[in-house]
Amino acid sequence: MRYPALTYLSSMPEQIDALIHAKWVIPVMPDCRPLVNHSVAVKQGRIHGVIPTDECETRFNADRETRLLTHALIPGLINAHTHAAMTLFRGMANDLPLMEWLNDHIWPAEQRWADEEFVRLGTRLAMIEMLRSGTTCFNDMYFFPNVVADAAEALNIRTCVGLIVLDFPSAWAQDAEDYLRKGTRLHDELKEFELVTTAFAPHAPYTVSDGPLRKLRMLADEMELPIHMHVHETAFEMEEAVKRNGVRPLERLSRLDMLNHRLLAVHMTQLLPGEIDAIASAGIHVIHCPESNLKLASGLCPVAELIGAGINVALGTDGAASNNDLDMFGELRTAALLAKGVSGNPTSVPAHTALEMATINGARALGLEDVTGSITPGKAADLVAVDLGAPATTPVYDPVAQIVYAASRDQVTHVWVNGRSVVEDGHMSRIDENECLQEANRFSQRLASFDRERAPS
Amino acid sequence: MRYPALTYLSSMPEQIDALIHAKWVIPVMPDCRPLVNHSVAVKQGRIHGVIPTDECETRFNADRETRLLTHALIPGLINAHTHAAMTLFRGMANDLPLMEWLNDHIWPAEQRWADEEFVRLGTRLAMIEMLRSGTTCFNDMYFFPNVVADAAEALNIRTCVGLIVLDFPSAWAQDAEDYLRKGTRLHDELKEFELVTTAFAPHAPYTVSDGPLRKLRMLADEMELPIHMHVHETAFEMEEAVKRNGVRPLERLSRLDMLNHRLLAVHMTQLLPGEIDAIASAGIHVIHCPESNLKLASGLCPVAELIGAGINVALGTDGAASNNDLDMFGELRTAALLAKGVSGNPTSVPAHTALEMATINGARALGLEDVTGSITPGKAADLVAVDLGAPATTPVYDPVAQIVYAASRDQVTHVWVNGRSVVEDGHMSRIDENECLQEANRFSQRLASFDRERAPS
Repeated sequence: MRYPALTYLSSMPEQIDALIHAKWVIPVMPDCRPLVNHSVAVKQGRIHGVIPTDECETRFNADRETRLLTHALIPGLINAHTHAAMTLFRGMANDLPLMEWLNDHIWPAEQRWADEEFVRLGTRLAMIEMLRSGTTCFNDMYFFPNVVADAAEALNIRTCVGLIVLDFPSAWAQDAEDYLRKGTRLHDELKEFELVTTAFAPHAPYTVSDGPLRKLRMLADEMELPIHMHVHETAFEMEEAVKRNGVRPLERLSRLDMLNHRLLAVHMTQLLPGEIDAIASAGIHVIHCPESNLKLASGLCPVAELIGAGINVALGTDGAASNNDLDMFGELRTAALLAKGVSGNPTSVPAHTALEMATINGARALGLEDVTGSITPGKAADLVAVDLGAPATTPVYDPVAQIVYAASRDQVTHVWVNGRSVVEDGHMSRIDENECLQEANRFSQRLASFDRERAPS
Repeated sequence: MRYPALTYLSSMPEQIDALIHAKWVIPVMPDCRPLVNHSVAVKQGRIHGVIPTDECETRFNADRETRLLTHALIPGLINAHTHAAMTLFRGMANDLPLMEWLNDHIWPAEQRWADEEFVRLGTRLAMIEMLRSGTTCFNDMYFFPNVVADAAEALNIRTCVGLIVLDFPSAWAQDAEDYLRKGTRLHDELKEFELVTTAFAPHAPYTVSDGPLRKLRMLADEMELPIHMHVHETAFEMEEAVKRNGVRPLERLSRLDMLNHRLLAVHMTQLLPGEIDAIASAGIHVIHCPESNLKLASGLCPVAELIGAGINVALGTDGAASNNDLDMFGELRTAALLAKGVSGNPTSVPAHTALEMATINGARALGLEDVTGSITPGKAADLVAVDLGAPATTPVYDPVAQIVYAASRDQVTHVWVNGRSVVEDGHMSRIDENECLQEANRFSQRLASFDRERAPS
């Protein structure tokens, strides 16, 4: 007599928090093949299951349901390199030679303005832009990482805050020693933060000397943290490094024992064949920022070769001063297109690879591959709905191709981070967006007068 | 006693059709410097004046007023090369070697499906996509140009329809002679069309032989029409041409006396220094299609050099089968970024140049520089409002930089063509958009089965 009762019990719908029904679910892991008319079950912030929509009624009883009839549900995008607060410099100076752009505009403005208030306003603006465009996790490098962490928790966006290290002083710290001290202290303070992790963020080989690099390499090993660094960004950097140190930066980092799986090497536009082999065998992650590299004419990262060598390549927008947006849809399209142009091979970086670079590869680089980056049961419910019913994505033969080659950030309608809704029908659901934009606009007026007054006559 | 009366008369507000008040007006001609808090007066479909908003009340009495508080008003964008109907193939095949893409997917699908109904549905979908994203004029090359012309008048979009010419048969014509006959007849039939002009559109040097090229060159001179042609698209085209004709295509066209200001040479990714000089001195217009060139790995057009040589370079998206959208905002950004990467110079194709390429340069190429391409009194009121109040374009230091480097097509809120409103608050104002999308979706299901059945197992 137990059988009927058991059958009854096992067929009782399970109580869960949310069901998201989508025309297509693109899980990314194990691959990007679209699951048609599927649903994602969410329980306690995590992905509980991915099943055909028509099986939902018998299996789950959900507190909330969202029906996405013309949408693809994808994992939240991961912006693996940015300087979020620099949104306040967005478009302040453009189309200039690199050193003029830095010396006459960006650096003086940073020196004068990059205080806590600046970081708070700029980072919040960046987070709104990122969440609205489907980025649920970003890897930041800027001053006042404590402020970035607070904003991440307040706005509910997953963030790896960079414990920045430089040889020279800023409003955040006085010298390399001070940056390291403040960074390690902050790391401890952030342990209870739900959505925040940390990485050491030595700015670049040319701005951090051997002593602090050795120290942070040891600390990173002890604390098991990634190291997030600009490496081989421009030909000028190569020339100067060889003049100063006698070797190229990668070789210097090798001598400092920094070439391993902890290193996230950002840009990498200047690479010799032997260096690609070294990166591959060391397990270094390369963070590709195609739009920033193009805009500053830094060089062209040989992405197809890197992927061919088995290197994990993730994507970043860089800061809004050199992009000028934080749009991962634009970035993954540029990455997919540019790789073909640079390699001369139209099969390089196909659509699914571009989507992987913008999701699971970023998670891997940040050591978050068990947490986010794919629609996999057990991972956090970091999810993005993209409405493919717009004219520019009609018709749909292949939703992944449409997302990569035709969709825009504005087709993002819903975003969840850790199971919590942050964007609903295209609007921020947890914050007064207009108030934040107005605050940013007010602050920018002061920056504009400063930049104008300094401009060469 | 005449003075007071005259004063009274001259201070009477003039009756006009519409006033559009914008935070910024970017006229493009004489340059791209933003006019802050300016208004555009529209009368009988034309731009009647551009004046400070606070002078409007005393000078004009308008039937309709539109207030754009956070917007830039720019000239309608001009897509100088597309195959509009191919939207129905959007995303059907991607990431393939060029010949496999053409032989196994695009050409068989065209042969089977490219009839009048296909062109009607596909072109209408393209026009909706283009208008919604701020394109008010496009230069088309496809079968059934008569259908394209009818759709242009119905949807109120300015169009240069291509009188296509090929050596081989299609559903539209049987042989080169037949294409030319149908083309010239259509040209005569379209004389009364308000928004339609024509160009001869010999597909490419490798698909049209000398005889028909000679004939259409004479006809183009007599009829004063542009000649719209794919030229020097790929390295493969170069090799085959040299094998077949002993010379590169540009040299062959030179011998056919076709190198002059009538020629719109599309793609031009394969160029020797001497060829750039020849293009410059002949006054040929180059139509640059950066996203299509990247996606198909056709090669990199040396845009900075072409502009440096004084050549008029306009922009096109190419067809949606190889892009995969018809988004001129994306295209002008890619053009601005790619030119910097290819030339290694971050000052190449600055923001204002990219905007000129997407507007006035296209008008020049199409012989429409007196009609459209800038916000100039006397020209048609082809106008586009871009809302820069979005997070991704906040703050605004320079509205032109924001449009080029940060704005997306979805920030287009209002579009006018010839003074008539076609997009209002982001929606098509003269057509049931959803019905058109549904028709396209239904048609695409037949295409999808056809492509699947033909796919190599």
